[in-house]
Amino acid sequence: MSKGSFAEMNCPIAQTLERVGEWWTLLILRNAFSGMTRFDEFQQHLGIGTNVLSQRLRSLTEDEILTRTAAPDDGRAFEYRLTERGLALYPILIAMMEWGEKWVPNPKGPRMKLVERGTGEPIAGICVHSADGRSLQPHEIAAVAGPAADAKTHELSCYSLPV
Amino acid sequence: MSKGSFAEMNCPIAQTLERVGEWWTLLILRNAFSGMTRFDEFQQHLGIGTNVLSQRLRSLTEDEILTRTAAPDDGRAFEYRLTERGLALYPILIAMMEWGEKWVPNPKGPRMKLVERGTGEPIAGICVHSADGRSLQPHEIAAVAGPAADAKTHELSCYSLPV
Repeated sequence: MSKGSFAEMNCPIAQTLERVGEWWTLLILRNAFSGMTRFDEFQQHLGIGTNVLSQRLRSLTEDEILTRTAAPDDGRAFEYRLTERGLALYPILIAMMEWGEKWVPNPKGPRMKLVERGTGEPIAGICVHSADGRSLQPHEIAAVAGPAADAKTHELSCYSLPV
Repeated sequence: MSKGSFAEMNCPIAQTLERVGEWWTLLILRNAFSGMTRFDEFQQHLGIGTNVLSQRLRSLTEDEILTRTAAPDDGRAFEYRLTERGLALYPILIAMMEWGEKWVPNPKGPRMKLVERGTGEPIAGICVHSADGRSLQPHEIAAVAGPAADAKTHELSCYSLPV
């Protein structure tokens, strides 16, 4: 069975998953956020098949999440770099990192820590805020249909998270 | 080719993806966050095959992201509800929703809006903060190896996001 496409779904989460939701893609992006740029480096670090890696990098480039340019020191090699659109994905990766550290911990402690690049100070992390700056828990938030909502979104907004 | 497993990777993002990174899973969770609980409702709303839906719900239940209990009004039906561990995934979905609305917009406007449940006021959204409460951009953040880091994580932390 084909895994199907979310491209026709009028939902921002589905549209994001259509671009970054394939198996391997978010780990490729994790490495791009760390500063990795070369095909061979991604391939070696991830232990991923070259066909899959090629396909994922091509999709990310077509979707303007990465740019692909010739490496300055080697005309046969290419460098993949995050665009502004790609850099804007960082809250997704940070949210996944925080969840994994908290809910699937390594008994020896944190595997990765996020720090401010300028100072090395640990960052506070990700937070969902109200308009007046309060931290919001999932039960305090509801998704409502916007002006571009379709029938599926209206259907979802009739439900309510049980408390 | 099998898509492979990230279970052996000592990385919090890989461990999160191992639990919620399969195709369809985050849309099932989107619906669970909206308050949907029944197999038939998920199946009808998502237009997903029953085999795939069964497999995804079973995985999410085994990973203690959802609980599965008999429906009070119909002994043959089951209800799937988010656990505390599952509710803690909400920043991932909100980050995906924000990215999709901004970078793959619908010309008619927002498809979904997040509001405070008590007041209906729009929320400010997701933010990555420093310890002293400043909003941080991707170039201001670095991932460094923690005490439980393995060789792969140390390797990644030798790179640096180009500015």
